Amino acid sequence: MKALLLIAHGSRRQRSNDEVIALAEKLKTECAEHYDIVQAAFLELADTLIADGIENCVRDGARQITVLPYFLNSGRHVTEDIPHDVDAVRPNFPDVEIQIAQHIGASTAMIDMLKATAVNAV
Amino acid sequence: MKALLLIAHGSRRQRSNDEVIALAEKLKTECAEHYDIVQAAFLELADTLIADGIENCVRDGARQITVLPYFLNSGRHVTEDIPHDVDAVRPNFPDVEIQIAQHIGASTAMIDMLKATAVNAV
Repeated sequence: MKALLLIAHGSRRQRSNDEVIALAEKLKTECAEHYDIVQAAFLELADTLIADGIENCVRDGARQITVLPYFLNSGRHVTEDIPHDVDAVRPNFPDVEIQIAQHIGASTAMIDMLKATAVNAV
Repeated sequence: MKALLLIAHGSRRQRSNDEVIALAEKLKTECAEHYDIVQAAFLELADTLIADGIENCVRDGARQITVLPYFLNSGRHVTEDIPHDVDAVRPNFPDVEIQIAQHIGASTAMIDMLKATAVNAV
């Protein structure tokens, strides 16, 4: 089974975290052909944290997990913190393949999305 | 003249800020038919700050300015801090129309972009 774990920063404002959880729910529907499990997790400040999110996926049967950072910039969180948290739990699940996808800000479609928003606003 | 001001949070890590500035440069090319001026500005921690960004646009001849928040969640920065900074400078430029577009995380295309990244990673 394949799992997708959407990782956001996490906020003290629960409404922000709920937006991410709702996004993961939508993504679950959209990616049903490709992923059996789609869940949200957070780097800090909110439940579920990355390690717990990975553990939940494995417990639900995942043997391939794709971690997708919902971050705009390739800052420390993307380049260091998320890989660190993922690497910390890898030894616990030697039979599970865990990979980190590119952060969403690196998507080539970002410029099109910004353009659409900018043009609609004129 | 119309200006687009792409607003990111701002980081102590200059490379992150440079990514936003590079994105604004790309957006300038993409939106040339719709905006005469396209620049990046930051909420905090980095130059140019929002107030200075707006002032620069006006000095360059802008009479309509669209502020585009490059933020994923509708947290305090989007709902309070950016509007606060924009409202603070409005009285200085009574002849300039300044509007705030929806933050990029609210784009309906976000789910498609996430799906594309997730599916490419499988």
